[in-house]
Amino acid sequence: MEVGFLGLGIMGKAMATNLLRHGFRVTVWNRTLAKCQELAALGATVGETPASVVSKCRYTIAMLSDPSAALSVVFDKDGVLEQIGSGKGYVDMSTVDAATSTKISEAVKQKGGAFLEAPVSGSKKPAEDGQLVILAAGNKPLYDGMIPAFDVLGKKSFFLGEIGNGAKMKLVVNMVMGSMMNSLSEGLCLADKSGLSPQTLLDVLDLGAIANPMFKLKGPTMLQGSYSPAFPLKHQQKDMRLALALGDENAVAMPVSAAANEAFKKARSLGLGDQDFSAVYEVVKGAGGSGSGQP
Amino acid sequence: MEVGFLGLGIMGKAMATNLLRHGFRVTVWNRTLAKCQELAALGATVGETPASVVSKCRYTIAMLSDPSAALSVVFDKDGVLEQIGSGKGYVDMSTVDAATSTKISEAVKQKGGAFLEAPVSGSKKPAEDGQLVILAAGNKPLYDGMIPAFDVLGKKSFFLGEIGNGAKMKLVVNMVMGSMMNSLSEGLCLADKSGLSPQTLLDVLDLGAIANPMFKLKGPTMLQGSYSPAFPLKHQQKDMRLALALGDENAVAMPVSAAANEAFKKARSLGLGDQDFSAVYEVVKGAGGSGSGQP
Amino acid sequence: MEVGFLGLGIMGKAMATNLLRHGFRVTVWNRTLAKCQELAALGATVGETPASVVSKCRYTIAMLSDPSAALSVVFDKDGVLEQIGSGKGYVDMSTVDAATSTKISEAVKQKGGAFLEAPVSGSKKPAEDGQLVILAAGNKPLYDGMIPAFDVLGKKSFFLGEIGNGAKMKLVVNMVMGSMMNSLSEGLCLADKSGLSPQTLLDVLDLGAIANPMFKLKGPTMLQGSYSPAFPLKHQQKDMRLALALGDENAVAMPVSAAANEAFKKARSLGLGDQDFSAVYEVVKGAGGSGSGQP
Amino acid sequence: MEVGFLGLGIMGKAMATNLLRHGFRVTVWNRTLAKCQELAALGATVGETPASVVSKCRYTIAMLSDPSAALSVVFDKDGVLEQIGSGKGYVDMSTVDAATSTKISEAVKQKGGAFLEAPVSGSKKPAEDGQLVILAAGNKPLYDGMIPAFDVLGKKSFFLGEIGNGAKMKLVVNMVMGSMMNSLSEGLCLADKSGLSPQTLLDVLDLGAIANPMFKLKGPTMLQGSYSPAFPLKHQQKDMRLALALGDENAVAMPVSAAANEAFKKARSLGLGDQDFSAVYEVVKGAGGSGSGQP
Repeated sequence: MEVGFLGLGIMGKAMATNLLRHGFRVTVWNRTLAKCQELAALGATVGETPASVVSKCRYTIAMLSDPSAALSVVFDKDGVLEQIGSGKGYVDMSTVDAATSTKISEAVKQKGGAFLEAPVSGSKKPAEDGQLVILAAGNKPLYDGMIPAFDVLGKKSFFLGEIGNGAKMKLVVNMVMGSMMNSLSEGLCLADKSGLSPQTLLDVLDLGAIANPMFKLKGPTMLQGSYSPAFPLKHQQKDMRLALALGDENAVAMPVSAAANEAFKKARSLGLGDQDFSAVYEVVKGAGGSGSGQP
Repeated sequence: MEVGFLGLGIMGKAMATNLLRHGFRVTVWNRTLAKCQELAALGATVGETPASVVSKCRYTIAMLSDPSAALSVVFDKDGVLEQIGSGKGYVDMSTVDAATSTKISEAVKQKGGAFLEAPVSGSKKPAEDGQLVILAAGNKPLYDGMIPAFDVLGKKSFFLGEIGNGAKMKLVVNMVMGSMMNSLSEGLCLADKSGLSPQTLLDVLDLGAIANPMFKLKGPTMLQGSYSPAFPLKHQQKDMRLALALGDENAVAMPVSAAANEAFKKARSLGLGDQDFSAVYEVVKGAGGSGSGQP
Repeated sequence: MEVGFLGLGIMGKAMATNLLRHGFRVTVWNRTLAKCQELAALGATVGETPASVVSKCRYTIAMLSDPSAALSVVFDKDGVLEQIGSGKGYVDMSTVDAATSTKISEAVKQKGGAFLEAPVSGSKKPAEDGQLVILAAGNKPLYDGMIPAFDVLGKKSFFLGEIGNGAKMKLVVNMVMGSMMNSLSEGLCLADKSGLSPQTLLDVLDLGAIANPMFKLKGPTMLQGSYSPAFPLKHQQKDMRLALALGDENAVAMPVSAAANEAFKKARSLGLGDQDFSAVYEVVKGAGGSGSGQP
Repeated sequence: MEVGFLGLGIMGKAMATNLLRHGFRVTVWNRTLAKCQELAALGATVGETPASVVSKCRYTIAMLSDPSAALSVVFDKDGVLEQIGSGKGYVDMSTVDAATSTKISEAVKQKGGAFLEAPVSGSKKPAEDGQLVILAAGNKPLYDGMIPAFDVLGKKSFFLGEIGNGAKMKLVVNMVMGSMMNSLSEGLCLADKSGLSPQTLLDVLDLGAIANPMFKLKGPTMLQGSYSPAFPLKHQQKDMRLALALGDENAVAMPVSAAANEAFKKARSLGLGDQDFSAVYEVVKGAGGSGSGQP
């Protein structure tokens, strides 16, 4: 199977490499072409522009850093739109908002092409190991055609229906995750202030019905006060805000998520927005309250 | 090693059986003696009273249904207190409140005996499989002496310090669990109302960083509206109330747990107290709100 | 002093009447001209179009029902923009969102005119009695020039700075009001379920430090379950959502308002959006939970 | 009418003075007898012990500082119990918990006497002006007999039914008050961070439907960061905790009050427990977060 691949950042490079290793013929493009050389060494063809990649390949995957890059690759000169058309499919696996996704979808469809949004859950390591979770939505025949590639890139792919549903699913997952991070923070703090060892709480949690990889990974670093940003708190809070807005739109009251969101907002107000989202633990502990005896 | 065992309910029977299978000599007692026969068939000796069991064994374990049973076995005629004394240890593995535990501890210590509270995390199946998690606190030498038995009964045991800490640790764990159940409920409801499949959300969650046995076990039954009580909601709410009270005592603000607690209270007010604690999902969905167009 | 007045709905008619009674010369316009006759009988001149009113008057006030009407009167053919210019002031007292207000402000300024947004707090009765509270923002000299009119229309006017601040101030006030309505609802429900008379609670509240007109007005109707919409719940919830969004923008955590917002959302989900905002009491009481004993 | 009066602290002295001024014959007693002289100068008779006051008077009022003083006056040697009996009434206007009130009630009733709990709302100034609000419960005929005195002491008295209802009513009122204080704090903080003047917000609030004496009194001092304790925050938080516990008992979910309670707990954790309860504003502002810009 032949695929085009636009964007060779940390994620894109790992994914394209995976495809090559599994026998796919891959034509790569990256804004800074130098990054293409590593992939060429593994057997990739190098395309000169997004348009030329699309021209050559029936299926083109994009993995870009943000909405503006995702739009640029499609709408700019030499962009995807210039060559997309009937019989061709474009699959954007970047994480973008619904408006960006819809805008690209409309443009591709107007040219007669097929479009799939397919944001992923998982970061660098799962990308290298082909262990991503793929949340696809849009054109179903295109999804079906992509299955051989998705089988290589991810441990599981889902087809979620109409455009926008991929982004929505990510919001819901991240909302649950954000509330759970608050629950853990409150538990650790309560243990600590009640004369129990927070580390022992982590050990006990890890043996029970609510054991999960996030508690196991983040718990120990939280106890060290180390918040090197794997997922920046301000992005977590943005996702909770958007999830709550989605709930507002559909009249779903979510008081626990709302309380968690306020804690993340408090964390932002304390300057923790660029730290890892687990830094909300500092809010529960009473961050900055050191001098508070003298209000 | 020889141990006494008081209380052969669902949990106690499984635990005593486990000990026998691993070569322990076990003297059992139960209020209704008939229950002792099954254990006798497996090689257990039958004691006539709690006092006679303690008289015979250096270590006696109790696994009783509630605080009043736990107190009765110790303080009533022919109870533990009559024979406990120097060189003997009494280990109460029942789940009781701090006041009950403290009262028993004081009485045993006054007689010269050693006491350990050791509530467990896990229900019937883990008890049968020796996969309990044991949260012990009290007399450290007694804990050390019990390790061979704990190794058989549980996959892990913890010594948590002074009397009361076992109960506290359970409260903290259950508080985190209760908040997580609310988070899951809100996520499922948001997915549903936003045009996503709640079942797919469960599938996605199960592949990611917050995958955990509880979501996997309870999620599908919640979607079926089936709340057969493994852990009754009113007990979950009681634990959250007590955990919040512990936080109050120690000036720990826990807004997410507080919001979750109010949802459980709302569930109680809707008559769901005897259902499984996952029935809080009904509150998030707007239980009973069917006829709500005509307030 | 001469003023133009665009919009003779319930509020506008009362306000224009007030100005006439206090000796102002008023030129009125309304989309359905018939409504102008009553005012003409009181001495008003009738303008044929918004443009002709602005052409005639140095100061023109608008009081329109919603953002689309506010935009239409300015931007449509024969609209305000055709005659506004240097030396003329336009004062929009309608309640509109910040985007609408900004759009009108930019257009008026570009023509050389002065603009003031001046939403009011208070409904029909205060409008008739000249007891409105006026929250003005924008052009300060225009505000100063309007003081004689504001003195007639309101018991108090405030100049709040840049365009948008009038709308923001209303959001903050309504957010506090929405939380208070929840507090009252929770208090009434707690009284009722605890064996106290909710009516007596209202009487006690009315004699103390937190006595306020809203509790006095809404409390008795809430106890009757009567929610004739003076301020529809969906609008209250919209204002809370926008206030929380303003807090999000400025990293202000507001957990009490967030909890109140979720209660209003729950009320919407129960079909109470078109009832008075005091219908949130039904949510606290457990609306629709009648059949909940059989979950 | 003749009444006995036990306890001449700030409140008691003002109340006894009021009674004398309105022509009541009053027999006073105070633990430190010196305090009785001022009242004697106004015409009071001085009793030597609580028992002697009760012996002399058909009705005896007590106004004591706390539960232990309230119990001591009744149960100690020369206490109320020694002389109370059929035909005599004892009215405790102190603010005590339900258990204390019940204990006194039982003892007085057993002696054949009548008992009324009658805690008041209002502090020194209303006590001097006869403007207290009296929340009475217990013996109805005694309440009826006390009306002439209550009419002098308060602007209004309520008979609330069985013993304990007076205390409950105070809890409900204070819960609503505590949530409102949080609402105000959030509003002030949102105004401030959004570029609006918090002082102007106070001015606007004071002109509208939610204007109330507490906002008017506390708002300006909050903006000054002055929290001289009229009502200590730790007492406010205790009352919210007890009100929430009352809600728990009766399965009333109160998410807004719960969120407010957590904010008060956070304030306690920041060392603000002995400040005025309005110091919760510091929590909303992000107390102690001063150095937090550089996480």
